[in-house]
Amino acid sequence: MLGSDAEVLAELRGRVSVTVIDDPDILGTYSRDQAAVIPAGRPLAAVLPTTTDEVCAVVETAGRYGRPIVPRGAGSGLSGGANAVDGCLVVSLERMNRVLEVNSQDLYAVVEPGVINADLRAAAAAEGLLYPPDPASYEFSTIGGNVATNAGGLCCVKYGVTRDYVLGLEVVLAGGEVARLGRRTVKGVAGYDLTGLFVGSEGTLGIITQATLRLVPARERPLTVAAFFPELKAAGRAVAEITAAGIGPSVVELLDQTTINAIEDWKRMGLDRDAAALLLIQSDLGGEAAKEEVRAVVSRCESAGASFVAHAGDPEESDELMAARRFAFPALDRQGEALLDDVAVPRSQIPALLAAIEKIAGRHDVVIGTFGHAGEGNVHPTIVYPRNDRASEASALAAFADIVLTALELGGTITGEHGVGLLKRDLLQAELDDASRWLHRTIRSALDPSGLFNPDKVV
Amino acid sequence: MLGSDAEVLAELRGRVSVTVIDDPDILGTYSRDQAAVIPAGRPLAAVLPTTTDEVCAVVETAGRYGRPIVPRGAGSGLSGGANAVDGCLVVSLERMNRVLEVNSQDLYAVVEPGVINADLRAAAAAEGLLYPPDPASYEFSTIGGNVATNAGGLCCVKYGVTRDYVLGLEVVLAGGEVARLGRRTVKGVAGYDLTGLFVGSEGTLGIITQATLRLVPARERPLTVAAFFPELKAAGRAVAEITAAGIGPSVVELLDQTTINAIEDWKRMGLDRDAAALLLIQSDLGGEAAKEEVRAVVSRCESAGASFVAHAGDPEESDELMAARRFAFPALDRQGEALLDDVAVPRSQIPALLAAIEKIAGRHDVVIGTFGHAGEGNVHPTIVYPRNDRASEASALAAFADIVLTALELGGTITGEHGVGLLKRDLLQAELDDASRWLHRTIRSALDPSGLFNPDKVV
Repeated sequence: MLGSDAEVLAELRGRVSVTVIDDPDILGTYSRDQAAVIPAGRPLAAVLPTTTDEVCAVVETAGRYGRPIVPRGAGSGLSGGANAVDGCLVVSLERMNRVLEVNSQDLYAVVEPGVINADLRAAAAAEGLLYPPDPASYEFSTIGGNVATNAGGLCCVKYGVTRDYVLGLEVVLAGGEVARLGRRTVKGVAGYDLTGLFVGSEGTLGIITQATLRLVPARERPLTVAAFFPELKAAGRAVAEITAAGIGPSVVELLDQTTINAIEDWKRMGLDRDAAALLLIQSDLGGEAAKEEVRAVVSRCESAGASFVAHAGDPEESDELMAARRFAFPALDRQGEALLDDVAVPRSQIPALLAAIEKIAGRHDVVIGTFGHAGEGNVHPTIVYPRNDRASEASALAAFADIVLTALELGGTITGEHGVGLLKRDLLQAELDDASRWLHRTIRSALDPSGLFNPDKVV
Repeated sequence: MLGSDAEVLAELRGRVSVTVIDDPDILGTYSRDQAAVIPAGRPLAAVLPTTTDEVCAVVETAGRYGRPIVPRGAGSGLSGGANAVDGCLVVSLERMNRVLEVNSQDLYAVVEPGVINADLRAAAAAEGLLYPPDPASYEFSTIGGNVATNAGGLCCVKYGVTRDYVLGLEVVLAGGEVARLGRRTVKGVAGYDLTGLFVGSEGTLGIITQATLRLVPARERPLTVAAFFPELKAAGRAVAEITAAGIGPSVVELLDQTTINAIEDWKRMGLDRDAAALLLIQSDLGGEAAKEEVRAVVSRCESAGASFVAHAGDPEESDELMAARRFAFPALDRQGEALLDDVAVPRSQIPALLAAIEKIAGRHDVVIGTFGHAGEGNVHPTIVYPRNDRASEASALAAFADIVLTALELGGTITGEHGVGLLKRDLLQAELDDASRWLHRTIRSALDPSGLFNPDKVV
């Protein structure tokens, strides 16, 4: 029973009473995320529900008229996971943005999906609590998007990823039913881990309308160590020794030489342009314990062969040292078009991965700056190429795929934290075996037989 | 194409070449787990594969002849999850018991499912590493069973549950295919979290034939604090204050008055029989940091109203103080038949749960001793009743169900770490909403359309 576009819009505006945007000028901003190289279709409309009931009615209407749904948070994704398909309804959860509860006794929060990560952090901080997951986009990305992509961040080395903080979810399924998954307790094994299945499913199994998230007591402002290394292997050794010693820093970030120089070209921070790598390591233990942890980190960096190690005496100095990490992507981005990759390998393979990336850069005649989460073996090789140059874009995309396949060869994964979306849908096939592909297809089509949710994405 | 029992056994012994046990005397030991009150069927045979290929062949054969499969580790489960159904093949993974790799660089182990938890711990310890999950059964339960039930333990308050350590799995699906799920890296978001879906699925979705498990650097031997409280609320206050202060003890266990007295009747350890609760709290930070953590814990217990606080000066004394926790279940068990429950509530609801349990004991005229993981709100009310007394058993089962429903009313879950199995299959319906039930049934039947794996269990 497929109606005309006008009928669908009339029903959404009338019976469903939800805000519908079909002005083509505004609609453009709803048609894609931040993955610039990935094509996006033209949506029929963007729909902005304010309640779970409205989401149900939208899903039911879309299903009845056979219009696909592309769920969307802030559109800050990096893999085209929120890109529109032609004729779809983009369901933006931006207006479901209330923090419903912060429970300081039992350390959890209940939020709507459109809550900005930073707003949840502020609400938690007001109660002396912390929501650890801190994707680089935390100031504008939404919790719904963070959950749908299982977002990572800088804190993962100590605190884990978004999945580790999702206790329960409310989701709207393809039939328009509401399922309340999970729990409010720290532990629980009642049935399948459906919460975990929906985390990271990138909008292909349902629409998240509420999340119950674990919080932890607030941490102290961190102290930073900055260590330059004359070669990548020495930096790898430092990370390995810090890990093996059971030292638990809250941040372990790496910047390679290309990234260091891009930052230096721009900001003149006095970074060592000759260094092969800069490690930025933080302790959030506070007081004497932080100073002791900093000393332990400094000593490991030195014995691993660092050429220069600085450490902050107070949190203000600490922020200055960490600034280099914040500048990494924008510094590369201003040198041309920047295509951000995201791969993870077993920690010990980081030096091998970086050496291989250097060769890939040479082979495709592109510049690649790599930075990221060395403590978990998850880095972001960023391919820089001239803007508006189709031949260079093709080279960049070829280098991109080579990096992903190299990570797989080194025992790693095609994506550590950015997700599959459209960008890596075909590359995902290289990571999964036949039976795993069958499991993906089977679960997806069992839950959404008509292919309503985010078609063409992930699998 | 259903053959006779003899044909099935002949094919398993012949073409498949797997060890098959059908001697009724031996078979009895394969027909049930440790949940005494739960019925078990009579298996056709127990099958003991030694390789993944053999598991595939067994699954394919069972499927062809329409014989259900009940997978089994050590049979140490507490919810009847490994209980046989009539005519089934019990597939015991006990002979797939090799630790295939302990990687001390990248902190993971690869093991077969029949490896005993304690054997993995020993293999990890030999490399200066630790596999944290420590169910009470760790000396005899298998990793396969631990993964299938998402086993908890004493360490969870600091280190999390089994799920938090499973990076990847090899599983044999209902069609006899092998799927390799997950990864070896710390982070990864390539596709759905199928690893997580299989963890805790209690043998209903496939047979686990290999697991890749995250390890951490070895910890120091712990120091213990023992604190007696005149009332439950004071003990609850102590746990809340320790948690809110961001103190991170490695163990936070509670024993109630009934449990304290059962231990005292048996072991005469000098515990305070008048205390409403005993908290046992450990620090595994080692050295000065452990002593500092112990001091912080002692001070919180005292300010919360503890009547007496002892703390160990060294690891030997520490073990003595912890002995009471080890004696908790056997002390209750020797007073009659002991029916062990397992519920979790938000941490702050522990005093309310224990007060409700006292009323339930009175209402059903049974003795209930409660002990467990107060730090995560997961406790084990243990109902003690006269052996071989059907009326008392009925009262015990009624009290058991009341406790579970009370936990749900307090915002908790019907099982914190023991699983659903047969014991709580019907109670699970009280926790799940309609859409969640549909998700369970739909996923299960999509993956195993003929109902081969562990029929009648969980859902």
